[in-house]
Amino acid sequence: MSQPARIAITGAAGNIGYALAFRIAAGDMLGKDRSVVLQLIEIPPALPALQGVAMELADCAFPLLREVVTTADINEGFNGADYALLVGAKPRGPGMERGDLLADNGKIFGPQGKALSDSASRDVRVLVVGNPANTNCLIAAANAPALDPGQFTAMTRLDHNRATAQIADKAGAHSTDVRRMTIWGNHSATQHPDIAHCTVGGKPAAELVSQAWYREQFIPRVQKRGAEIIRARGSSSAASAASAALDHMRTWVHGTPEGDWTSMAVPSDGSYGIAPGVIYSHPVTCAAGAYSIVQGLAIDDFCRERMTITDQELRGERAAVANLLP
Amino acid sequence: MSQPARIAITGAAGNIGYALAFRIAAGDMLGKDRSVVLQLIEIPPALPALQGVAMELADCAFPLLREVVTTADINEGFNGADYALLVGAKPRGPGMERGDLLADNGKIFGPQGKALSDSASRDVRVLVVGNPANTNCLIAAANAPALDPGQFTAMTRLDHNRATAQIADKAGAHSTDVRRMTIWGNHSATQHPDIAHCTVGGKPAAELVSQAWYREQFIPRVQKRGAEIIRARGSSSAASAASAALDHMRTWVHGTPEGDWTSMAVPSDGSYGIAPGVIYSHPVTCAAGAYSIVQGLAIDDFCRERMTITDQELRGERAAVANLLP
Repeated sequence: MSQPARIAITGAAGNIGYALAFRIAAGDMLGKDRSVVLQLIEIPPALPALQGVAMELADCAFPLLREVVTTADINEGFNGADYALLVGAKPRGPGMERGDLLADNGKIFGPQGKALSDSASRDVRVLVVGNPANTNCLIAAANAPALDPGQFTAMTRLDHNRATAQIADKAGAHSTDVRRMTIWGNHSATQHPDIAHCTVGGKPAAELVSQAWYREQFIPRVQKRGAEIIRARGSSSAASAASAALDHMRTWVHGTPEGDWTSMAVPSDGSYGIAPGVIYSHPVTCAAGAYSIVQGLAIDDFCRERMTITDQELRGERAAVANLLP
Repeated sequence: MSQPARIAITGAAGNIGYALAFRIAAGDMLGKDRSVVLQLIEIPPALPALQGVAMELADCAFPLLREVVTTADINEGFNGADYALLVGAKPRGPGMERGDLLADNGKIFGPQGKALSDSASRDVRVLVVGNPANTNCLIAAANAPALDPGQFTAMTRLDHNRATAQIADKAGAHSTDVRRMTIWGNHSATQHPDIAHCTVGGKPAAELVSQAWYREQFIPRVQKRGAEIIRARGSSSAASAASAALDHMRTWVHGTPEGDWTSMAVPSDGSYGIAPGVIYSHPVTCAAGAYSIVQGLAIDDFCRERMTITDQELRGERAAVANLLP
């Protein structure tokens, strides 16, 4: 049997972390034939609760789970990590300005990038889930000199899955009938869910729904789905965010199906006129453990306008944290 | 493809239900090749939160999930159900007598038994998770005239998994090295975790640990693990209870490995001198979708004494709810 995969999770005692850890231990991320070591990281006040999570993980007697590490020391937590899921972040408090939010999170993700650079596997794959995810990811990548920025990604798979489910529901189909959904840009309300290349049961999605529904119902619903969940549940998306994180990592490792792609926020490389330097969600294919931005898609004026808005937001965020980018 | 499995969950917006639903939809109960319909049941005040759970399930775009039903109507919720996981129960409030707890839960599980009898698949498999699980199960079974009492089981798999993990840890082994752990009796502090027939890496567990450790450390720790988790986490076991429920159902359907068994609370049939009539945890093997109590195990005086104590507790619970047993 190969070495167990070392999987680090920050914010591991929080609601998303709690939903993630057990599904990873059950084999839902890497498959039923790959054993895992969970390296669970929390801030010191959450260590007792984290210990409870570790006890519950032990109580599951998971066949694939070889060891659970709990720590508040990020170098210990990231030590040898093959995968790092950066879930813990500082949420926006009442009256908090966006600049303060970005700066406070920068104080978390800068040191985490450095610790990953110092301690993780040289092949570590990093997924940032904690918001503002794209810019937190940018900060982590910029502070990890020994790693390739391409090893750092942020999560728009939850948006991708939400968009897929919404279009399937509208078309009277199943989510497995949907191909080539695309989320462009920032994991925020400026994201652009794009159905121009999407098919449902082999038919162009844009022919199955009206432009009015697409623009006036679908786009804002996907953009604001997080708030809709909070209103219904009384708490934010946890299990669905965890599920999307597993999907993101599994797809990165095991690949996208032939004829399909997924959405990942990755360092922009100039594709589609998005100037390099921000972590921007693109359509990507994955194969042999690597992702590639899908090239050559036609972009109409509407889409271009939306892609630019979300790009501008990301550039604004980057400017606000310039002092945290070495 | 075969018809999707219809899986009903009561208390589906609670913490255990929330941990269960997503793992079932991901294929962790019945496997990655069986599609499912989730029939989620809650009491009316929890329906808005349950709607939020259903929205998050949709947002996961699970390939195996065909439909989600949310309802407060148990006949609708159990309609055609192939599997029913009865998780919702009334917890013990401050100053509440055990008799009141049993009676209040009887008012939940009696009608649920009748609704299963009226509405579920004739082959429904029922697992009671909500406490006091064994006697809740007895009440449900007794109120389901059209079903075989053997279709009703209660969960001691969490205790079984906890005991397996504890003995593995003590022996410096992995939980997958442990065979033939047994939980006897009630899912309560009187349960008897029995290692007399257990092996670790092929060696008798009783030769690997001292009798003093077994009796003074192991038994009380397994019996009181729930309280230990609450102290650490600040809330009761949720993900580990859900994981054990999945294990219970998966083992029932897919079978126990050759040379091993599991623990399930099932209607006593006179085996081991436990007079019929209570739902008592036994070592069972499962094959072809059915369970069988393991026969012929030698029972020493210590084990017999403990088996009797937990039997007496179950008979006391049964006497307290006699008016709920038609």
